[in-house]
Amino acid sequence: MMVFTLAAQGQGNTTPLRIIMIGAHPDDCDIDGGGTAILMASMGHAVKFVSVTNGDAGHQSQGGGALAKRRMAEAKEAGKRFGVTYDVLDNHDGELMPSLDVRLQVIRKIREWKADVVIAPRPNDYHPDHRYTGVLVQDAAYMVTVPNVAPDVAPLVKNPVFLYFQDGFQRPNPFRPDIVVDITPVIDKKIHAMAAHESQFFEWLPWIGGYAGEVPKDKSLWEPWLKKKMEREITEDLKKTLDKWYGSGRSASARFVEAFEVCEYGKQPSADDMRNIFPMVGK
Amino acid sequence: MMVFTLAAQGQGNTTPLRIIMIGAHPDDCDIDGGGTAILMASMGHAVKFVSVTNGDAGHQSQGGGALAKRRMAEAKEAGKRFGVTYDVLDNHDGELMPSLDVRLQVIRKIREWKADVVIAPRPNDYHPDHRYTGVLVQDAAYMVTVPNVAPDVAPLVKNPVFLYFQDGFQRPNPFRPDIVVDITPVIDKKIHAMAAHESQFFEWLPWIGGYAGEVPKDKSLWEPWLKKKMEREITEDLKKTLDKWYGSGRSASARFVEAFEVCEYGKQPSADDMRNIFPMVGK
Amino acid sequence: MMVFTLAAQGQGNTTPLRIIMIGAHPDDCDIDGGGTAILMASMGHAVKFVSVTNGDAGHQSQGGGALAKRRMAEAKEAGKRFGVTYDVLDNHDGELMPSLDVRLQVIRKIREWKADVVIAPRPNDYHPDHRYTGVLVQDAAYMVTVPNVAPDVAPLVKNPVFLYFQDGFQRPNPFRPDIVVDITPVIDKKIHAMAAHESQFFEWLPWIGGYAGEVPKDKSLWEPWLKKKMEREITEDLKKTLDKWYGSGRSASARFVEAFEVCEYGKQPSADDMRNIFPMVGK
Amino acid sequence: MMVFTLAAQGQGNTTPLRIIMIGAHPDDCDIDGGGTAILMASMGHAVKFVSVTNGDAGHQSQGGGALAKRRMAEAKEAGKRFGVTYDVLDNHDGELMPSLDVRLQVIRKIREWKADVVIAPRPNDYHPDHRYTGVLVQDAAYMVTVPNVAPDVAPLVKNPVFLYFQDGFQRPNPFRPDIVVDITPVIDKKIHAMAAHESQFFEWLPWIGGYAGEVPKDKSLWEPWLKKKMEREITEDLKKTLDKWYGSGRSASARFVEAFEVCEYGKQPSADDMRNIFPMVGK
Amino acid sequence: MMVFTLAAQGQGNTTPLRIIMIGAHPDDCDIDGGGTAILMASMGHAVKFVSVTNGDAGHQSQGGGALAKRRMAEAKEAGKRFGVTYDVLDNHDGELMPSLDVRLQVIRKIREWKADVVIAPRPNDYHPDHRYTGVLVQDAAYMVTVPNVAPDVAPLVKNPVFLYFQDGFQRPNPFRPDIVVDITPVIDKKIHAMAAHESQFFEWLPWIGGYAGEVPKDKSLWEPWLKKKMEREITEDLKKTLDKWYGSGRSASARFVEAFEVCEYGKQPSADDMRNIFPMVGK
Amino acid sequence: MMVFTLAAQGQGNTTPLRIIMIGAHPDDCDIDGGGTAILMASMGHAVKFVSVTNGDAGHQSQGGGALAKRRMAEAKEAGKRFGVTYDVLDNHDGELMPSLDVRLQVIRKIREWKADVVIAPRPNDYHPDHRYTGVLVQDAAYMVTVPNVAPDVAPLVKNPVFLYFQDGFQRPNPFRPDIVVDITPVIDKKIHAMAAHESQFFEWLPWIGGYAGEVPKDKSLWEPWLKKKMEREITEDLKKTLDKWYGSGRSASARFVEAFEVCEYGKQPSADDMRNIFPMVGK
Repeated sequence: MMVFTLAAQGQGNTTPLRIIMIGAHPDDCDIDGGGTAILMASMGHAVKFVSVTNGDAGHQSQGGGALAKRRMAEAKEAGKRFGVTYDVLDNHDGELMPSLDVRLQVIRKIREWKADVVIAPRPNDYHPDHRYTGVLVQDAAYMVTVPNVAPDVAPLVKNPVFLYFQDGFQRPNPFRPDIVVDITPVIDKKIHAMAAHESQFFEWLPWIGGYAGEVPKDKSLWEPWLKKKMEREITEDLKKTLDKWYGSGRSASARFVEAFEVCEYGKQPSADDMRNIFPMVGK
Repeated sequence: MMVFTLAAQGQGNTTPLRIIMIGAHPDDCDIDGGGTAILMASMGHAVKFVSVTNGDAGHQSQGGGALAKRRMAEAKEAGKRFGVTYDVLDNHDGELMPSLDVRLQVIRKIREWKADVVIAPRPNDYHPDHRYTGVLVQDAAYMVTVPNVAPDVAPLVKNPVFLYFQDGFQRPNPFRPDIVVDITPVIDKKIHAMAAHESQFFEWLPWIGGYAGEVPKDKSLWEPWLKKKMEREITEDLKKTLDKWYGSGRSASARFVEAFEVCEYGKQPSADDMRNIFPMVGK
Repeated sequence: MMVFTLAAQGQGNTTPLRIIMIGAHPDDCDIDGGGTAILMASMGHAVKFVSVTNGDAGHQSQGGGALAKRRMAEAKEAGKRFGVTYDVLDNHDGELMPSLDVRLQVIRKIREWKADVVIAPRPNDYHPDHRYTGVLVQDAAYMVTVPNVAPDVAPLVKNPVFLYFQDGFQRPNPFRPDIVVDITPVIDKKIHAMAAHESQFFEWLPWIGGYAGEVPKDKSLWEPWLKKKMEREITEDLKKTLDKWYGSGRSASARFVEAFEVCEYGKQPSADDMRNIFPMVGK
Repeated sequence: MMVFTLAAQGQGNTTPLRIIMIGAHPDDCDIDGGGTAILMASMGHAVKFVSVTNGDAGHQSQGGGALAKRRMAEAKEAGKRFGVTYDVLDNHDGELMPSLDVRLQVIRKIREWKADVVIAPRPNDYHPDHRYTGVLVQDAAYMVTVPNVAPDVAPLVKNPVFLYFQDGFQRPNPFRPDIVVDITPVIDKKIHAMAAHESQFFEWLPWIGGYAGEVPKDKSLWEPWLKKKMEREITEDLKKTLDKWYGSGRSASARFVEAFEVCEYGKQPSADDMRNIFPMVGK
Repeated sequence: MMVFTLAAQGQGNTTPLRIIMIGAHPDDCDIDGGGTAILMASMGHAVKFVSVTNGDAGHQSQGGGALAKRRMAEAKEAGKRFGVTYDVLDNHDGELMPSLDVRLQVIRKIREWKADVVIAPRPNDYHPDHRYTGVLVQDAAYMVTVPNVAPDVAPLVKNPVFLYFQDGFQRPNPFRPDIVVDITPVIDKKIHAMAAHESQFFEWLPWIGGYAGEVPKDKSLWEPWLKKKMEREITEDLKKTLDKWYGSGRSASARFVEAFEVCEYGKQPSADDMRNIFPMVGK
Repeated sequence: MMVFTLAAQGQGNTTPLRIIMIGAHPDDCDIDGGGTAILMASMGHAVKFVSVTNGDAGHQSQGGGALAKRRMAEAKEAGKRFGVTYDVLDNHDGELMPSLDVRLQVIRKIREWKADVVIAPRPNDYHPDHRYTGVLVQDAAYMVTVPNVAPDVAPLVKNPVFLYFQDGFQRPNPFRPDIVVDITPVIDKKIHAMAAHESQFFEWLPWIGGYAGEVPKDKSLWEPWLKKKMEREITEDLKKTLDKWYGSGRSASARFVEAFEVCEYGKQPSADDMRNIFPMVGK
């Protein structure tokens, strides 16, 4: 096949768009794209979260299908709070492989959502499930348009824009913030939605992170505590991009942000496309 | 786990029941259980056909997703004529393996249908896809009740009755007709429904069978021709079982029958259970 | 390779022997061979139980690694009570496949135990894990003697005797009781040892079997209740074999038995070999 | 697909035919069908032997690719002596699995040879490689005629006759000698051809069989010794079949025989077909 | 193993050399290396194209084995026009995985061609089949020299030079044009050869690229249209490399070029080696 | 899961530490980390070498299990000379894939050793086994701390520090020497230990490297010859890092060094952590 086929694709999408975020575990999309999802949904985009694994391993004292069912219920509740639909695929947590079988699951999710935009982790990250989610979504790019692949679901007419969630890893190359979203206005809503994953944010992550003792006994303090925990210094790099898209000055007030990089394997969006995808940055 | 757990299961199903027939290709359930399905559906049971492969290989001049889509459309039409729903799973025809992945697909189909009865081929037959469909369904038996398996779909409360379709193979042991259904009253409807699979009964099967020249040019003659083609001598063995269930004399008038064997891996049905499952034999 | 190589193998084992029983789940060897193991161990044989899966799925409310760890602890305690060592391999419950990887695990277990006798399920049974355990052990037979296979563990000098546990399945052929062991004298010890698997006999099996309500609230009544639950009518076939080995009359007093079939893929034992393996039947 | 497609196939093959024997190891076809192959080849049939594994494991002190190359050279020499071509597929010995990949290798070999007859082991035998060779060849039956499978090699116009080599295993059902060939006239030629596999018959098999001490030091005595080793009592069952095909009395003089069973998954040959396939039995 | 073993390899190849280009689909080598292949072949090198998949998915209305056969015929015709042999491996299009099985297919192709030079895509590109072709060829590098791997085909005495085809992807690192070939003199011949893939350049690629309407109705206009479509601006980077190898000034006249990067996993060629491989650049 | 969990991990390890080096073949750890291992072991650290493959392919005339056993014996002897334990996993050489099965083997090795530090190749190198060893160890990072993964072995309380061995490959990014160890004082001991792998350093590597003729006939000259062979120019980059850790001037006297890069997927060590891990550099 020829490289120029991609360049030849023009995509005239207008708002509202259909966005799908794909993470490895039930809570990944929430952390990396939850604020953006709230903003997008509130501005008219249809947003779906997908967890490629069922989360049946990441816990200190529970596991298996029993844990998976708890995680699915948490995801459902989180979706409600975010204003998105939330699907959990039934693949074992901690055992995700970039197999053809799971790639086809991903292709079907993207097609069924008629996605204009797909957001997923880069294929480098500290957790193998994250990395292989990145590989799987890359391997679904372009193939979502090929009719003979997964013929039981209609192919997309156009290859979506594929974006990467932000991460801090430098090798083999660092994340490049092509766009940064100021989620400060919705940070409390994001934290509230994230908090639906009780088994994650108040049980497993504190335990594996060695800070279980910090979790407040009083449940009413959980969300403020989690918000505190989510604070990150905003790097100069991110500030610059923020100002580029929002207009200078925005970085002065932003306290919480989410950033995204354009993946080379999907449609290459113009600046206008990006503003359609991220209407919160304004025209 | 203990064998006595199965003996301890009693299943108080009453009519109407939920029946799922599972074949390898889009046309297999039709041939082996189509008449029974018509009768069951007309008497109140809810019946679903599933093809485990998408039929994308069995043709002399077409293939791939393009063929699969044609086969899915044919199956949909056939289902309408049979009075059943017809699902086609997207696994390559001619390449079916008894993998865990496909087993889970089968488990989900059985659970989602809340099946009381599952009917599938025996694991011995001339076509590897047929054999492995038999293996896959056997491997789904019992597991459909285990909550930790495929936790995204609620487990069945009781292990269904599993039945085998009839076949003529003798090794390692022959088919045993535990029940025989007289489908003579609905044979024309069965043939009409089967005929929806045009690519199978009037293209591929005649070609591979070496009798393509016999297919009438005039489409209006297809169904009578196919009916003729489906005629089989009814063996003494089948006649005896027919008379056992219907009352003696039935075998004298029956011209078309379908037979089934009880599989050891599901619920072991009593005679009353069998009469509930097959209400056409009468009480 | 040639068939006559097997016939040419003579194995001059004398008591005490090394026995390995291999089941699918942590409780399978116990149910099918536990009484025999107690008798063998008390008469000097060294006996090991192996569970090929870690039991991480068969429970109504727990699962995953957390359940597996509970099952391993139960197996360890059961082994102590039986007088055997008990190993649990870390393969997912409910997902066992007859892969090369697991076959090699089984080969290593048999070799490391320097087994003279291997006992496992037949490859037909209601649970796919049971069937595939049967396949895996069959696939390990003979290969345990081939030095180039699993070269990190010394091969056995002689192919062991392979036996099947009893089951009630008739297709494709029924179990044949080549020897029957009267375990009546040790039935209470067997029940006590089995009872170490609390999560199985008093939680999961009653739940899946639909008799959870029968389990006594009072833990001190558990063992008598389980013993009652284990009662089976002893068929004529088994009685005849019992009398053949023990001398006539034994069947009159036996209340609990375990039976075994010789597998064709291992050493074919003479009657004397069988008496060495099963010293409780006497000379 | 429909069962009647097979019944509808008529195959008007005339002598000479094209025969392919498929074994697991380089020496399996030789042992089980070598005499028949010599007779067939001398009477005009084109015969090929295929070993599905490369024999790289079955040796006490050599292994890997180095051993495989020795085995390929031995097979080549054996083929020359038998009057057949001998192919060795490069799959690991002792690790054969019934995968799609190897099934396609087998399909291609059968097609490229334009085989009228395929002979392979039954799927039950003491060696897992033998069993899975049986499964693989069964899984190739019928599929050899499907054009969309392995489209790089032209499909066969007709499903060949599939036969099983003889074995002594009883479960799940015993071998049935549908035809028996008297190879007494060519037994010395068969032994001479087999003897080309030096690494098998004079090194590995005696070692693993525990009779390495019996192998003559003097190489000139190897063939007589091997012939002695190959002697088997001819059972009544085989004698009866021998007389059936050759005319009564043949069993009185036969000293060495080879027997075959017709597999249900290929063309079902008539008695005349069988006499065409086995011209040595006469008309 | 030690890194210095590679450095120690010196390869004294002289013209003519044996070149193998390996692409994912039947048309990939043509697009990325077709002009170079024409020049190489005309100057005495022996050139082979290999497509790792059979192209059975990339089409809007055809598929499967039927499409694969059309693609193989097109490839054969294209090979004739290019002056190269063209092999198509029978692996499903759109489903290529970097499995051991396919790696061994690639190893055998490289060895059988006794390749001095292997050219393949980088493991980053928009199509997963392209990426995994890159991985598979990388995984074949060095292993082509190891005698115990694929022992049925003689190993290469020396690790070939491995080159990458040009692509435009930047992550994780951009393509580096180590050499650029001016194919302007043979561009019409390249276009004519490419045009043999009718199902690709005039059906599938325009359809998936959204420019099906541009394809001329008049077949005689296809080649000029395709040539137009293949026009690319030659970047400064490529021009610089062109001048470096050809002598300054070449970039002024070149209209069509192909570029290649040296892969680190094969022999590291000297400038003289490169001039032997690419004799069209002159000495 | 959340990125900040890693940052939150503080590891208060004090000397002595537990180090595990993981290579693809029996000799890889030796070459890349042998000198460091000698120094570490002599200063109190507990060091283990693991070879993920059994080395059964890398030889010009031997192979299979027979070769694997020779390699295991050589590794054992080498371990003794290095002052480390040396484990060889039984996976085929030249066929290593980044499968879940092997990942779990690696996880268990790291856990059983209660490793504070894990050292492995980068996922880019000329040999696929090296690359996939890098992938496997990366995929084990973090998962070694998750209790539900491989529940049969206790998880590590803290994610170890993961380091990469040095290599010379530039794509997609070059090795970065985060620390360099001067092994000049122990180079003779390293060479002596390496020399235990006779089948590697004096047979296979010279053969495949094309310098078999250089190997001295006189075994007593092997070690000096090998030392000569191991000489490498120390780049400026390495010298700078050497001086950074040891104090300036060290690079003037160092003749043999080993270098390591910190992997992003494990604990990120402070400079003090690094001095604890590498006590030979001093405080």
